[in-house]
Amino acid sequence: MPEHTHPDQVSAQAAFAALADPVRMLIVRELALAPEWERACGTFEVPVGKAALSHHFAVLRSAGLIEQRDVGARRVNRLRRPEFDARFPGLLDLALRG
Amino acid sequence: MPEHTHPDQVSAQAAFAALADPVRMLIVRELALAPEWERACGTFEVPVGKAALSHHFAVLRSAGLIEQRDVGARRVNRLRRPEFDARFPGLLDLALRG
Repeated sequence: MPEHTHPDQVSAQAAFAALADPVRMLIVRELALAPEWERACGTFEVPVGKAALSHHFAVLRSAGLIEQRDVGARRVNRLRRPEFDARFPGLLDLALRG
Repeated sequence: MPEHTHPDQVSAQAAFAALADPVRMLIVRELALAPEWERACGTFEVPVGKAALSHHFAVLRSAGLIEQRDVGARRVNRLRRPEFDARFPGLLDLALRG
């Protein structure tokens, strides 16, 4: 399992930096629309290569924005919406509103 | 006078990017504590050179976070708190809380 950071351990600066990137916001947006644990990492249509995408997922985990788990060969994702909202009230809404 | 951007013209991503930098947050924090139009650009104790500082002020202007005007040889600043709060409710509070 990849390493995770709970939103309670995340600084506002790290949260802003995570949300300031268009590729990461694309992932966050799609996760906000999907049921939890449904989207696998390979299913996002993003204009970056595999290594860059893997880095973006790591940034999202370390900002407390997503949780990942491995199910067979797939790594599936959920947006940590309630936990993140509790730590940074209104921030995800602002980000999703754009 | 330097070029300004009103917060209404700023994307959430640009606002997050502006607030994600520690030097810019240092400036924003000090402006939040000072009366408007009091602090001149040269009065901030920041660990960067003049060119970098000038860039940070430009980013803060273009994110709708500060307004600047020239008074004689001094360029003085105000935090655009009410306008920025209206565009991004709660965001500056989150940033200042850290």
